[in-house]
Amino acid sequence: QDVTLINPFEVPTVHEKATIEHWEKARDFLQTQPGYISTQLHKSLQPNSTFFLINIAKWESTEDFQRAISNMQKVIPALELDGVKNYPALYEVIRN
Amino acid sequence: QDVTLINPFEVPTVHEKATIEHWEKARDFLQTQPGYISTQLHKSLQPNSTFFLINIAKWESTEDFQRAISNMQKVIPALELDGVKNYPALYEVIRN
Repeated sequence: QDVTLINPFEVPTVHEKATIEHWEKARDFLQTQPGYISTQLHKSLQPNSTFFLINIAKWESTEDFQRAISNMQKVIPALELDGVKNYPALYEVIRN
Repeated sequence: QDVTLINPFEVPTVHEKATIEHWEKARDFLQTQPGYISTQLHKSLQPNSTFFLINIAKWESTEDFQRAISNMQKVIPALELDGVKNYPALYEVIRN
């Protein structure tokens, strides 16, 4: 049963470019991992929204996702920029 | 060019049921509005995530979405429950 990773990012304007570049590095690694299905990085259309970026990715299982993240952490350092905060969690669809 | 509404909800456990019921009322109204494409309500698979619910909806345009919301506010009272907070904003996909 596939799962959806939804990851909202708070991003100060000064760090927008660096955050997207770090996301691209992570995406390039994660898309090679077993269980990866797809990902879409969303950018807010409104200047003052709380979350400038929200990533939405699909994985075949929770275990696939967790294994991929732990593999990634061995080769890509975590994003550490002042004011950049994110809230990753796995979700399932309950209503349409 | 269609847009994506992403709306994370902070929901205390005691208000989970009432929040979902209010979401269903809003969905039933919004899906009748011009420009509505689809919606998916996501529930967190992890107990301690910041956002228990995240709604992801597709609309044909920003204007369609804004008109639908203002129409809805005339007939459905806003959700006001202690500790329930949400962060709706419109997004576009910038990377896959």
